[in-house]
Amino acid sequence: MAGNSFGTLYKLTSFGESHGKCIGGVIEGVMPGFEIDTEFIQSELNRRRPGQSDITTSRDESDTVEFLSGIFKGKATGAPIAFLIWNQNHKSEDYDGLKNVFRPSHADYTYWAKYGVYDYRGGGRSSGRETAVRIVAGAIAKLMLQKLNISVSAFTSQIGEIKLDKHYSELDLTSTEKNPVRCPDLKTAEEMILYINKIKDENDSTGGVVTCIIKNVPVGIGEPVFDKLNAMLAHAMLSINAAKGFEYGSGFNSAQMRGSEHNDEFFYKDGKIRTRTNNSGGIQGGISNGEDIYFNVAFKPISSINKIRKTIDKEGNEVEIKPIGRHDICIVPRAVPVVEAMAAMVVIDAMLMNKNLETL
Amino acid sequence: MAGNSFGTLYKLTSFGESHGKCIGGVIEGVMPGFEIDTEFIQSELNRRRPGQSDITTSRDESDTVEFLSGIFKGKATGAPIAFLIWNQNHKSEDYDGLKNVFRPSHADYTYWAKYGVYDYRGGGRSSGRETAVRIVAGAIAKLMLQKLNISVSAFTSQIGEIKLDKHYSELDLTSTEKNPVRCPDLKTAEEMILYINKIKDENDSTGGVVTCIIKNVPVGIGEPVFDKLNAMLAHAMLSINAAKGFEYGSGFNSAQMRGSEHNDEFFYKDGKIRTRTNNSGGIQGGISNGEDIYFNVAFKPISSINKIRKTIDKEGNEVEIKPIGRHDICIVPRAVPVVEAMAAMVVIDAMLMNKNLETL
Amino acid sequence: MAGNSFGTLYKLTSFGESHGKCIGGVIEGVMPGFEIDTEFIQSELNRRRPGQSDITTSRDESDTVEFLSGIFKGKATGAPIAFLIWNQNHKSEDYDGLKNVFRPSHADYTYWAKYGVYDYRGGGRSSGRETAVRIVAGAIAKLMLQKLNISVSAFTSQIGEIKLDKHYSELDLTSTEKNPVRCPDLKTAEEMILYINKIKDENDSTGGVVTCIIKNVPVGIGEPVFDKLNAMLAHAMLSINAAKGFEYGSGFNSAQMRGSEHNDEFFYKDGKIRTRTNNSGGIQGGISNGEDIYFNVAFKPISSINKIRKTIDKEGNEVEIKPIGRHDICIVPRAVPVVEAMAAMVVIDAMLMNKNLETL
Amino acid sequence: MAGNSFGTLYKLTSFGESHGKCIGGVIEGVMPGFEIDTEFIQSELNRRRPGQSDITTSRDESDTVEFLSGIFKGKATGAPIAFLIWNQNHKSEDYDGLKNVFRPSHADYTYWAKYGVYDYRGGGRSSGRETAVRIVAGAIAKLMLQKLNISVSAFTSQIGEIKLDKHYSELDLTSTEKNPVRCPDLKTAEEMILYINKIKDENDSTGGVVTCIIKNVPVGIGEPVFDKLNAMLAHAMLSINAAKGFEYGSGFNSAQMRGSEHNDEFFYKDGKIRTRTNNSGGIQGGISNGEDIYFNVAFKPISSINKIRKTIDKEGNEVEIKPIGRHDICIVPRAVPVVEAMAAMVVIDAMLMNKNLETL
Repeated sequence: MAGNSFGTLYKLTSFGESHGKCIGGVIEGVMPGFEIDTEFIQSELNRRRPGQSDITTSRDESDTVEFLSGIFKGKATGAPIAFLIWNQNHKSEDYDGLKNVFRPSHADYTYWAKYGVYDYRGGGRSSGRETAVRIVAGAIAKLMLQKLNISVSAFTSQIGEIKLDKHYSELDLTSTEKNPVRCPDLKTAEEMILYINKIKDENDSTGGVVTCIIKNVPVGIGEPVFDKLNAMLAHAMLSINAAKGFEYGSGFNSAQMRGSEHNDEFFYKDGKIRTRTNNSGGIQGGISNGEDIYFNVAFKPISSINKIRKTIDKEGNEVEIKPIGRHDICIVPRAVPVVEAMAAMVVIDAMLMNKNLETL
Repeated sequence: MAGNSFGTLYKLTSFGESHGKCIGGVIEGVMPGFEIDTEFIQSELNRRRPGQSDITTSRDESDTVEFLSGIFKGKATGAPIAFLIWNQNHKSEDYDGLKNVFRPSHADYTYWAKYGVYDYRGGGRSSGRETAVRIVAGAIAKLMLQKLNISVSAFTSQIGEIKLDKHYSELDLTSTEKNPVRCPDLKTAEEMILYINKIKDENDSTGGVVTCIIKNVPVGIGEPVFDKLNAMLAHAMLSINAAKGFEYGSGFNSAQMRGSEHNDEFFYKDGKIRTRTNNSGGIQGGISNGEDIYFNVAFKPISSINKIRKTIDKEGNEVEIKPIGRHDICIVPRAVPVVEAMAAMVVIDAMLMNKNLETL
Repeated sequence: MAGNSFGTLYKLTSFGESHGKCIGGVIEGVMPGFEIDTEFIQSELNRRRPGQSDITTSRDESDTVEFLSGIFKGKATGAPIAFLIWNQNHKSEDYDGLKNVFRPSHADYTYWAKYGVYDYRGGGRSSGRETAVRIVAGAIAKLMLQKLNISVSAFTSQIGEIKLDKHYSELDLTSTEKNPVRCPDLKTAEEMILYINKIKDENDSTGGVVTCIIKNVPVGIGEPVFDKLNAMLAHAMLSINAAKGFEYGSGFNSAQMRGSEHNDEFFYKDGKIRTRTNNSGGIQGGISNGEDIYFNVAFKPISSINKIRKTIDKEGNEVEIKPIGRHDICIVPRAVPVVEAMAAMVVIDAMLMNKNLETL
Repeated sequence: MAGNSFGTLYKLTSFGESHGKCIGGVIEGVMPGFEIDTEFIQSELNRRRPGQSDITTSRDESDTVEFLSGIFKGKATGAPIAFLIWNQNHKSEDYDGLKNVFRPSHADYTYWAKYGVYDYRGGGRSSGRETAVRIVAGAIAKLMLQKLNISVSAFTSQIGEIKLDKHYSELDLTSTEKNPVRCPDLKTAEEMILYINKIKDENDSTGGVVTCIIKNVPVGIGEPVFDKLNAMLAHAMLSINAAKGFEYGSGFNSAQMRGSEHNDEFFYKDGKIRTRTNNSGGIQGGISNGEDIYFNVAFKPISSINKIRKTIDKEGNEVEIKPIGRHDICIVPRAVPVVEAMAAMVVIDAMLMNKNLETL
């Protein structure tokens, strides 16, 4: 009954199911007068949509956003911005065979146990399709951040066994969109594509990692104690379907580091307080320190694979399920814009919260 | 200005600074009539307090909790439960030398940048001392969970280079409290103690990992989309001082796994729907599936080390700071009860949220 | 940027403008499996819609609700229920003459001052049209309350100088819908109709009062201190366009009463604790006591009247505005279902909040 | 379990019972660096405390506030400001005779029904003593508003049959504190004092009305739709113990007014948009228009009277209760500072919310 909203002052309320009429959302917190660049929003949606390349699912959904309210003559009015993305392709008959069956590692069983009435059509509310709504709210957040010169750039840093082993500062992040796996290092991208094709031939799926860099967040953003900027990012990232882990700055590697090695020494340069290293990942005590914020998000392999699998039905009978529908082999390339969207929402919300510290 | 509360229906509002009069909190959401076992709460506080063993800081603070409201004749009344832990030892003069100096990788700089007025006394609000308040609220949450037969057990699984390489099912979790590093495998515990002593001799500090297991959470707990149980756990864990990463179930390892290997096959046993493996970590689609919930939290090395370090002051002058105060070498053993406390608060809150699904 | 949501566990998020594409909302907190009686919802909308009788505005809007999500095979799924009411008749050209003009006692000036960009088309977000969204959420709340035998019945108790001077217990509340002013006393209803027609002939408008009775709320509903049931009702009622006052139980009259006269004596009858009088209006200490809850809401006269009026434009020039559009003479009859809707939302939310007091 | 917090960005969390150790609160939203004038806060508390004059209860409680956190060297740090008021006088034995008895028109019965465990000592959480906590948070809000030249002034406008029949603009509001009933018109004040003494001689109690004027709120404060400034004020006022009604601007009187008479005509004066009349009470469409905000709050007579009364005990037996404790005859004079405190909190919170409309 809860869980459908994200954010405090910049806030998205999401609704819709994968095989219902539509998905959509309501956005609050956009400054009145702010120009809504709908082309940019649509281009962000296109980065997430199925069917965009050979290595993603061949399901073709256009995912066109329709704004319903809160915009007048191209500008935000301060009223809530509601929007829809109509579902084009609701052949729920495909799923009729699954009515009483729990697909392994999907949310079929837990939703049925929680809600009693289970909308079995392709995942319903638990489907990854829901993330398109996040893209829209995230795109507007990105537009607001752009005005402040803040950039949010994610990319694929691992697919299965193929890892990108360069520090992000060595990469040209503008290359991310130049290949279908969204890895800015073209050589690694090629290996990833080969790897995905291999997994596809084996009728299997694979996981991966998305890395995200946020540049130019001013010092002082984030709230203390429970709503640290890193805690909000962790919350945001783990709310994405298939996400299994989050680490920022030195992350899990910090567990084996020493304090003398880990500490980021302060120095003064060009009128600014800076740190020589950035193990802190741009956040200290939960509050941004002006350095780059960077973090990783781990994604599990897609649960739907092209093999016959054993499971049980609601009565507890063992059954086999055949592969249905068309699926990605690895969700990571399509998760890249979702990670960016959620990160942008976290940062803009934290910036709005911070405004109230100023003198009235 | 925000960030001082955690939870929706089971809710802690925290206040206080490390070198002020006291720290404390207000707890809402305890069932009226629920017996408050203050001895248990104090015993949980003792697990976190400094000075409890050779390998923790030698600062000795008794950390006695005093309840102010919401309890009548030993039972919760339904009114908010306020409590204090008085600070005994506020020799803030120790910190006078740090008035204008930013300690590396502490929150001194970011708090000063955010709030303008900086309470430099030993970290103020950003100090790890604040976690004692979480212990109190977490202890009451644990008492409520105990009535439901739900257990929350954390332990140290890594300190620096020493990793516990056993699956948790092979461990006797009742052994955790039998050694000062809180590692249930006694052989590994000894290695960890040796390692900490080595680091101490080198005037350095080290990081580590806490693993947490939650057993017997019923099926159906957690909210969809943005407030998935794993997202709430990630938020809770990353809000703990020095935490750098969170992973649940197969975690970061899932990135290199295949779907055929990762999928948890359902089967039916003793009238219950179960999974044969548990890569899902007990959570599917953000909702508990009845299997064990387990996760890891990475902690960075303590920033305070016993060495002279370079930094700058508020005017940007380079200065050296000498070690002051007494500090832990590794926060991980004392973080174990904090991880449990936060996990217990997340689970009880999710269970209270879930109640409203029942017929009125 | 805020103010678009109402309720905590039963929650409506509202969007849309009077002359945009549509108005709509997202409802959270409906029990999964609960049957959604869309006919009843539409019938409630029909009670509010313009053009329903001679004494209401002659604008004819069908106000048909379209559900987008959260319902599967006629039943709530537990997912958010989104819905739209398309605006049929957006001749915003009518309002072009008002682009730069502030209509007296409308929200034109304050919205323009607050938001800078002003959507002048017929009130935009501040239009009474927004209340149709509340009707939908209120209708579902009423359906839930019906299952618990709780009724929410409002009626017109004053229009201008015509007051209904009977206690509600003397009235047959089922007669309310039998006349266009929604006054259950037919003689008074006739006088009210005559009064409205007189005011209409004078090209003027008038205010009035709605009285609401909630029966069979169990003892113990409502939260203490800041969220008393009466405080939530007051919040809800004053949020309705044109509402100017709220009183419950003995209300403003209690100011001149004595304690000996005002106190409601307890007695025991048929196994229940009752009060002999009900000056408390069914609420004591903010919590329901099982007696009837009753309250009054005052509404000001409609600001739009059929006369030429003086005002100023954005540049501060004095201008005259001619009457445009078609308006009600008195909003009170159409406010009756809105008062019921808001009251039903308050009660169901308080009942969901109360559930968490039960043993887990 | 809920209901203990008020406000969004300027937020008070309240705790404590009338006969427990203390009452207290946690305030969030005070700008870091803001000077906390503790003398002013104490002087506000003194306006509310019992025993301040002949016409209030003779119970003498000093009600001294002790700040625990969030203030360093006299200034707010941005951290939550916790404070306590110790209860001096907890002779709960006085109340032992009431253990099983429901006092008429008190919250004894409803709290017992709701919470099962009832803290019978003088009202516990439902006692008017709780309002002292509001005074502290309101006093800080008033200090913040003073910096912005905004004043919040309440006074007694009715006690029982004695009404102050002047418009507030004819009154010298600085005279309010010059007499114990807090009526700025000295002649009426004298009548009110005589009236209270008469009621006292009759061992009875009486109700009354508080009027509140807020001056210099800038245009544009308040949120649309559900959180209109008037709705927030209504919520705040009805949350005060014994409050039975709220009206702003033309209030209940507007019900019998005509639109032509009620409309506030705009004009332009000294570079400002003004209205010639102020039936709107300074708020249009839920948003302040720059004119004075004014409203009335009705209070019922004190339920405790100095007479033997009939009631029942928990078993349903009829019993008589003798008067115990010392009580006010009319709460209104002591409610005046509480009304101001709640109004100040509403306005400062709305102003903080409004800040986010500015360009980032």
